Amino acid sequence: MSFLNPKYQDLTPYTPGEQVNEQEYIKLNTNESPYPPAASVQQAVVHAAQKLNRYSDIAGESVAKPLARYLGVKQEQLFLGNGSDEVLAYIFQGFTENGIAFPDVTYGFYQVYSNLYQVDAKIVPLKDDFSLELTKYKKTKGTVIFANPNAPTGMYLAPEEICDFLERHPDRLVVVDEAYIDFGGKSMIPLINQYRNLLVVGTFSKSRQLAGARLGFGVGNAALIADLNRLRFSLNPYNVNSLTQAVGEAVLQEQSYVDQKIRETIQVREWSKKKLTELGFEQTDSQGNFLFAKHPKLAGEKLFTALREKKILVRWFNQPRTKDHLRITVGTQEQMERLVQALATIIKEVTV
Amino acid sequence: MSFLNPKYQDLTPYTPGEQVNEQEYIKLNTNESPYPPAASVQQAVVHAAQKLNRYSDIAGESVAKPLARYLGVKQEQLFLGNGSDEVLAYIFQGFTENGIAFPDVTYGFYQVYSNLYQVDAKIVPLKDDFSLELTKYKKTKGTVIFANPNAPTGMYLAPEEICDFLERHPDRLVVVDEAYIDFGGKSMIPLINQYRNLLVVGTFSKSRQLAGARLGFGVGNAALIADLNRLRFSLNPYNVNSLTQAVGEAVLQEQSYVDQKIRETIQVREWSKKKLTELGFEQTDSQGNFLFAKHPKLAGEKLFTALREKKILVRWFNQPRTKDHLRITVGTQEQMERLVQALATIIKEVTV
Repeated sequence: MSFLNPKYQDLTPYTPGEQVNEQEYIKLNTNESPYPPAASVQQAVVHAAQKLNRYSDIAGESVAKPLARYLGVKQEQLFLGNGSDEVLAYIFQGFTENGIAFPDVTYGFYQVYSNLYQVDAKIVPLKDDFSLELTKYKKTKGTVIFANPNAPTGMYLAPEEICDFLERHPDRLVVVDEAYIDFGGKSMIPLINQYRNLLVVGTFSKSRQLAGARLGFGVGNAALIADLNRLRFSLNPYNVNSLTQAVGEAVLQEQSYVDQKIRETIQVREWSKKKLTELGFEQTDSQGNFLFAKHPKLAGEKLFTALREKKILVRWFNQPRTKDHLRITVGTQEQMERLVQALATIIKEVTV
Repeated sequence: MSFLNPKYQDLTPYTPGEQVNEQEYIKLNTNESPYPPAASVQQAVVHAAQKLNRYSDIAGESVAKPLARYLGVKQEQLFLGNGSDEVLAYIFQGFTENGIAFPDVTYGFYQVYSNLYQVDAKIVPLKDDFSLELTKYKKTKGTVIFANPNAPTGMYLAPEEICDFLERHPDRLVVVDEAYIDFGGKSMIPLINQYRNLLVVGTFSKSRQLAGARLGFGVGNAALIADLNRLRFSLNPYNVNSLTQAVGEAVLQEQSYVDQKIRETIQVREWSKKKLTELGFEQTDSQGNFLFAKHPKLAGEKLFTALREKKILVRWFNQPRTKDHLRITVGTQEQMERLVQALATIIKEVTV
């Protein structure tokens, strides 16, 4: 006998990428930044740690204020979450009465949330080249959600196409998950005043080096944000703790460090793309902090396993359309040189 | 037009106690510890801050292992949450198919969660003296949840009565919210192997000085914990971030400091009770880190406002049965002396 509601008995949970010992592995499997956060983050937490006996500020003012300023929005247009996952969960919980539609190849949690909240989810296949065609969503109903750049493909959709859809469907909520936008592409955030059906989701986990701190955000018109807060205040108002607020605030004061690391990641990404092409890989033109690549002569699982043996961890998704691809996080230049070397060795062993 | 599902439009959210500037106010309104966490907590966060670019350990091993050891349970009998609020939310979401029952005077979030998840909630009145009679729950159905010691009354129910109920109703889940157990009373945790329908919820926010870090836990038999994890892995597997794990681990290494502060709080509580009685207050025999008191000559709201004017913040609940009571967190000895002085002045002004 189980006390769990039967409707949750068969949930298929999200499978996170393995967290392994960095001394042992080169970790290119969860799209983290390979760089530590700016040094001032450490001082910020020491200060916050002294006051941990007190509850955190529910408004998260110390982060919300500078973040709103940085993004060019009002504070009432900004929602802070315990990672962008929490923001996404609230969207699936609260904004899907008429269903939701998303691509077949995308962030795995969209399907997981749909199952959890028993949402009518319509899966719309990407084109053969993995590009997203919003016109295909005309026939679906309710909310639309997609990542831009998409994961694991890294492919980017220009704002014009999104605007066109927003205009044609003012009664449908369009959620743009911009977890990777800082690595390539134009954010939709400046357009939230123009489209009241637009909700943009962002995170401090990737470009801002704070995956371990869990800080995400949603940006949209004030009514949407108020509705998100309605859910938050009925579930977990203290969702972003004092330590996370402190590091978020500190990181926002180190924008030049963040920008520099973004530039480095883009440089290393483009170098890596070139090298993988030379090794015979087929790739998307990823705009994220990762590559999405397959080799015509090697199955994805085989490549994944061979790299793992060489202590390099990448992500392999055992899914029909992507099982021969690897998603490879862009690490440091040195890490990527070792990856390229390892791939060259593996390919050589197979092809001779 | 709102995009929020109509079923959530009228949610009445939880009203958290005000967070105010401690330089200006004596803050006795949210049952926090008045003492900062042990000094080693600061070193712990510095270390963790350097690795924030990496995701946190999903298993929370560094906290789960020593916490399980301290509680005398197996790790698979322990669930870690983003505050005990998150643990409670999962319980209301997943374990209330046949409804839930709880006291009329208790933690306000039980009603809020019931509304959020549209659970059939049966409210069972406490007796006139605010004591909890479990036999009254015989006629209810489904899960039973109560806080022990209860909040805001501080009243404590002996394990024997809970065991009796657990035995008579093996098919009903009984959740004991032990947020305040360290300040008085015996935990039910040692009994989880005996009762597979028992789930105990705890927190680091009160006796462990970590309200701002959000670390809560659930303890029960492995099947219950696995079911809680089923929900967590479909909603927010990275719920307890790296910084929170680090401070939780550090605090568990400082048990003598924690114990000493608990003893201090109990001493100050009993001193304060005595003083309030001398001032004519009627009180419960609170076993929490707070008092629950009313004055025969002064309405609760009036007392609350008069204290606020004197820069002392306590909690007043505008509810039929408790509107003449105040819930007063036990602060430091010095803070409570100032409270007693302020109350004496207020009462004098009114009664002469």
